[in-house]
Amino acid sequence: MQVGKPYFINLACTGVIPTKAMNSHVPLHYEEILADVAQALALGVQMVHLHARDNAGIQTADPAPYGRLVEAIRALPGGRELIVGVTTSGRQDAGFESRSRVLELDGLAKPDMASLTLSSLNFAQSASVNAPDTIRQLAERMATKGIKPELEVFDAGMANFAAVLLKEGLLKPPLYVNVLLGNVAGAQADLLQLAAILAALPHGCIVGVAGLGRFQLAANGLGLLAADGVRVGLEDNLWFDQQRTVLASNTRLIERVIAQAHLLERRLLSTTAIRDRLGMTS
Amino acid sequence: MQVGKPYFINLACTGVIPTKAMNSHVPLHYEEILADVAQALALGVQMVHLHARDNAGIQTADPAPYGRLVEAIRALPGGRELIVGVTTSGRQDAGFESRSRVLELDGLAKPDMASLTLSSLNFAQSASVNAPDTIRQLAERMATKGIKPELEVFDAGMANFAAVLLKEGLLKPPLYVNVLLGNVAGAQADLLQLAAILAALPHGCIVGVAGLGRFQLAANGLGLLAADGVRVGLEDNLWFDQQRTVLASNTRLIERVIAQAHLLERRLLSTTAIRDRLGMTS
Repeated sequence: MQVGKPYFINLACTGVIPTKAMNSHVPLHYEEILADVAQALALGVQMVHLHARDNAGIQTADPAPYGRLVEAIRALPGGRELIVGVTTSGRQDAGFESRSRVLELDGLAKPDMASLTLSSLNFAQSASVNAPDTIRQLAERMATKGIKPELEVFDAGMANFAAVLLKEGLLKPPLYVNVLLGNVAGAQADLLQLAAILAALPHGCIVGVAGLGRFQLAANGLGLLAADGVRVGLEDNLWFDQQRTVLASNTRLIERVIAQAHLLERRLLSTTAIRDRLGMTS
Repeated sequence: MQVGKPYFINLACTGVIPTKAMNSHVPLHYEEILADVAQALALGVQMVHLHARDNAGIQTADPAPYGRLVEAIRALPGGRELIVGVTTSGRQDAGFESRSRVLELDGLAKPDMASLTLSSLNFAQSASVNAPDTIRQLAERMATKGIKPELEVFDAGMANFAAVLLKEGLLKPPLYVNVLLGNVAGAQADLLQLAAILAALPHGCIVGVAGLGRFQLAANGLGLLAADGVRVGLEDNLWFDQQRTVLASNTRLIERVIAQAHLLERRLLSTTAIRDRLGMTS
């Protein structure tokens, strides 16, 4: 158990699916995302995970809006140190070429991390196809570009595949892993299933626990008890309470994690400390 | 633990991938498959799971060769009672129309079961796409046709999805489940991971444990200790020994399971008894 140890928060502030109609607090546009990131920074959040939309509000793999966001984040107070991750999501397009464009961003527009989902899987409405070759190509390109993979693990098998890629040299330790619980065809927010995943991960991973929908609250608790940190935010969950009467905002979700952590005697790591643990230069 | 209780064997005698060059014992053609099934019947095996190839030796979804095989199996001694399952594999074609053709077989050509993989997933070389809608369509068609789904579970999330489909009424109890261990992006042949899957399955499932490649031997042991039966055969595993010095045959693999079971005081259920448990008419 990790009570008493410093921890991190990874803010997944916006995703592929949420719309303003679902929750008006979801930051979709540049200024909105920037405002949520600024609030997170003020609260001590060390990592953010970004999705960008095109002008029609659809998830895009175009690197330009990502680069613009990363550059603007770097100019925020504390933004230079913030660990900024971008999606390489294959929900719209499973191909390597489209998904890797964001890895070409450079200079102040360059992200620190990029997501790498470790298998194909089903979400509630659709399949997300991440073929083995595509995963390996993305891992290789990230290594070449000095971008840390933000590994996404939805079940024990994906933890096993992380170990395989590590052995193949396509991933370099220390690994950073988001364990995402509560997907309908993935591991649930359950002690036994999380235990199986954590035991299957290579030794020494830095792990954040995330939860989808109503399972985000339980996942926050599990992450604060058993892992290095939590991923939280509107990408994964739109409601604040289990009864779904109050819409969440990124700031309220972060504040609740901090309150939970406080009671478990966990304080936020400095961003520099987590960068050091991840082997990232500041 | 299930020691002392009667059990079943599900023979997966041939699959999508194996070739004669990999193992000359793999039954690819009609007569070869029939010969292996006849031997299995003589040993007391209660279930077989079939893949058919076209004339070029490629996995086919054409119902004709399946129907011809099922009819011929029915004419074997004991073949009338044998529980015969056919694949609806999506490795070659992920679409419902192609995959469901085999469910239209009727009369003596009609299979008892058909495979239903409960999520998209990666195998070692490629993605297997089973989108949520396709899974639901296949389940619905199987229910209409009176064909029992042979559920394929590669990780805890797929066990969860079985529970979801049961709740939706798309699956009817008792469920029959193959838990397949050792796929590179699936659960491993590991106590904790199998425990997580078994706990996530709906109450009252009839479970066979299978293992891929060298993990088949451990999966045999796990199935005989902790489940209702085992799936074994050349579809999943080409080598008899862990050192990969001796090529397996379906008969040798079955005989080894029977020898293991004997030492655990487990005897083969009668096919009629397992049909009763599955709610199938004989």
